[in-house]
Formats: sequence, C-alpha cells, structure tokens
Amino acid sequence: MDNNRPIILVSNDDGITAPGLRHLIKCVSRYGKVIAVAPDAPRSGQSSAITVESPLKVTRHDDYEGAEMYSVSGTPVDCIKLAMHAIVPRKPDLMVCGINHGTNAGNCVLYSGTMGAVMEACTVGFSLLHHSWKADFSECGPIIDAICQPLLTKRLPDGVCLNVNIPAKCKPKGIKVVKAARGHWTEEYKDYTTPSGKPFYWLTGKFVNKEPDNDATDMYWLDREYATVVPVSIDQTATDSINSLTEILK
Amino acid sequence: MDNNRPIILVSNDDGITAPGLRHLIKCVSRYGKVIAVAPDAPRSGQSSAITVESPLKVTRHDDYEGAEMYSVSGTPVDCIKLAMHAIVPRKPDLMVCGINHGTNAGNCVLYSGTMGAVMEACTVGFSLLHHSWKADFSECGPIIDAICQPLLTKRLPDGVCLNVNIPAKCKPKGIKVVKAARGHWTEEYKDYTTPSGKPFYWLTGKFVNKEPDNDATDMYWLDREYATVVPVSIDQTATDSINSLTEILK
Repeated sequence: MDNNRPIILVSNDDGITAPGLRHLIKCVSRYGKVIAVAPDAPRSGQSSAITVESPLKVTRHDDYEGAEMYSVSGTPVDCIKLAMHAIVPRKPDLMVCGINHGTNAGNCVLYSGTMGAVMEACTVGFSLLHHSWKADFSECGPIIDAICQPLLTKRLPDGVCLNVNIPAKCKPKGIKVVKAARGHWTEEYKDYTTPSGKPFYWLTGKFVNKEPDNDATDMYWLDREYATVVPVSIDQTATDSINSLTEILK
Repeated sequence: MDNNRPIILVSNDDGITAPGLRHLIKCVSRYGKVIAVAPDAPRSGQSSAITVESPLKVTRHDDYEGAEMYSVSGTPVDCIKLAMHAIVPRKPDLMVCGINHGTNAGNCVLYSGTMGAVMEACTVGFSLLHHSWKADFSECGPIIDAICQPLLTKRLPDGVCLNVNIPAKCKPKGIKVVKAARGHWTEEYKDYTTPSGKPFYWLTGKFVNKEPDNDATDMYWLDREYATVVPVSIDQTATDSINSLTEILK
C-alpha cells in the first residue's frame, strides 16, 4: 500500500452486502485507499452497542472497486474497534459510514447503528431517506463530496461527529447545518398472538415531530428537499443542568 | 392496584436475575408499587439498541418483595418501550435502572445498556463500581434515597436523565453533581487463534482518564469515595458547533 495515500475507513449498519455501502465506497475512493469493515448481516438499531459476551470473527471478502472488504460478526461499533485493532495499517485519514438505507433524522440518531459507528470514530454518517434495498443513491454523490472534501484538510470540532441526511427521490437543493428535531414515537408495537394464544410484539411506530415549523431543525429542511448536517456530541453530559440539579438534589 | 399509589418502573441491563436489580427493588418499594421489566439474560453494552428484526416476548415471573416481575426477550430499551406499551397500567411516577454491576463512569455511558434504558425513560440509572454478582450493595440505599426522594415531587430538567455511580467497598462520603470524565480506551481486544489457525478477538481494554486531576468530573470524585451524579442529555446535538461547522463546510 502507498503509505502517502489517504486511508478512508468505510462502515455501515446495514451490512457488508448493502448497496448503500457500495455506493459510498464508489463516492469516496477518489480520495484515497478505501478499506470497508461492515457487519456480516444487517445490524440496524444497534446504537453504540458492543459485543462483550462472545468473541468476534473477521472475514475478508473480494475487493470492490479497489476497496478492501471485511465483515465482522458483530455490531457497527465492533467493526470500528476491530478495524483499528486488527485491519487498518494506521489511523485512517477519513472515516465515513453509510449510506444508510433510511432516515436517521430527529431522535433516530439515538438508536442508529450507523451513528453508533460514527460516534466511535468521530466522523461522518450518511443516510438516504429511503428504506428500500433498491433505493436510488445517484443524487448523493455531490452531498458526500461537499462534506468529505473539506474534512480531508480541516478538523471537525473536538468531540463532534456529523449526522448527514439526504432527501430521497429528488436532487437536493442545498445543505443546511442544523439541530435534530425533537419529537416522540407513537404506536410503537404491533401486537400478535402465538398459535397457543400467547401475546408477542414487533417494533414499529412513527416519529412525531414536535417542532415541524422550526427552521433550525433537520426535519424542516429534509421536508423541503435539502440535505441536513447535524453536529453530534460524543460527550453526553448536559453541562447546563449541573447547577439546577445540584439545587434539586439538595 | 391502588390507583393513587405511585408506580415505580425498575429495569436494568444485567437481566431479571441480577442481585443489583433486586437490591434496587427493595430500596424503592417504600415509594410505591414497583413493576420490574428487565431483559431475560444479561445485555451489558447494549447502549440504546432496539430489536427491529425479530419479535419480542414478555414473561411474567414470581413477584419479589411485592414487585411484579417481567422479563423481555430483548434489549434494555425494548424493556422500557414494551413496559409502556403492554405492562404498566399508566405512565410511571418514577423510573429507575440498575443497580448495575460495574461502573458507568466516564464515557462508559455511551455503551451502557443501563443508560440506554435510562435515556429512553428520561430518569435515573444507578451503578456500583464492582462487577461481581456477589457485590455488596448495602451502602447504596442512602444514595438511592437521596436521589429518588426529590424526584417524586420535583421534575428533572427537560430532556435530561441522571447517571449515578456509587463507589464500592466503602461508605460514600457524599454526592457530587459533575460531568463525565473524558478519556479513551486502550488494549481493546485479546487475540486468539481457532484450532484451525484463524484469528478471533474478544473485547477487553481499559478506560484511560484524560483528566484525572479535574475535580469537575465523575472519576475524580469516585476515586475519592464520593457517589457521582452526571446529568445526561437525550438530545445529542452539539449546538455550539453549528456555526463553526457552517464555516468548515462552506
């Protein structure tokens, strides 16, 4: 490997076979040597989960468009940790995740395996607002370029990573740097009954945006066909609340 | 059920059989009717993971010290979501998680299943700095009381939950409301070889505190035998970075 070429680590939560991963590899391979390390199966909704009770295997796959391809028998965060431990020859110059099949806007960021990997590596996650395995990623390229090119030379603020969402079925009108829309989930489970009459449940539900008219939020601009960038803090301390809490607990 | 009695929802990530869960139930049952909904097996390191690709079952167990006991075949966040959907008769008056067997100080909060459940329910997680199933929880009671009693009548700041860590093998000297210590993990995997000569890996490693002398952090005070309370923000947007990022991406 040419040691002077930038190394780009690519991961996702939809797994090594996801079309979104392959599209992202194609987009970023112009910047350097791509090494992809992704889960061996879909791991959506894994957040920052890590595998602590069982060992992990790494499998090498056929190269794709010049990229080395590896799968890991674990979560998205496991992929990043193991990539750093056993796969990449040195700290990557850029790390990107996605393209996720489906939105990570609003508070989806909390559950997203894509964003779990991004927070672990402190870089950028891309999501397209379309769940299908056959989603059309062709309009994502200019957005990915606009985010990745500056990051090859400029550092993100310390402890901050980026959650990028891209509207589907349109050419994005531009990019807005905003905060995550606040909201809550409703109708979270579909109820079933087993053949022997016992209840069981499957997660579903929808996100209800509490601030649909707030132009400082991601969902506002995604609805208007803009791509959005939300800076996400790795440190979750609610520093502003330390004083008021000290009062409450007195 | 007496409708006027407060309802206390208790969960954890170590599972329905964990001694720490039972100790917490005993501590909080003086405040009202306790309903415990916990994973059917240990789910440490599950962060805010949710189960999206398979259904979930709920199992009723024998009551414990007057508490209704349920296990869920999923993650800590699944437990909270399903408790709200199918188990508790109305919104609980208080929700607590733990007592976790082992620390959730520093950036452990990112991976913790205990804190995943806490962020889902926006309330309080308790952790004792001792991993053993036989840990001595006897000094935790006064700390749990000091945190829970005010919360029966006063609200936490909007969108904020609490990460409480309790030192082990001592009587805590007091409680400090602080931020999470920053640091990083080293030596993250132990390397093995299969009988047929292939490598595999098991997560390990230790947290290196970057700011051991900072008396505004949790690890500083835990080292000095104080319990610590870190307010944790559900919204992960790094609001302070929006302007500088807009510049970087120009």
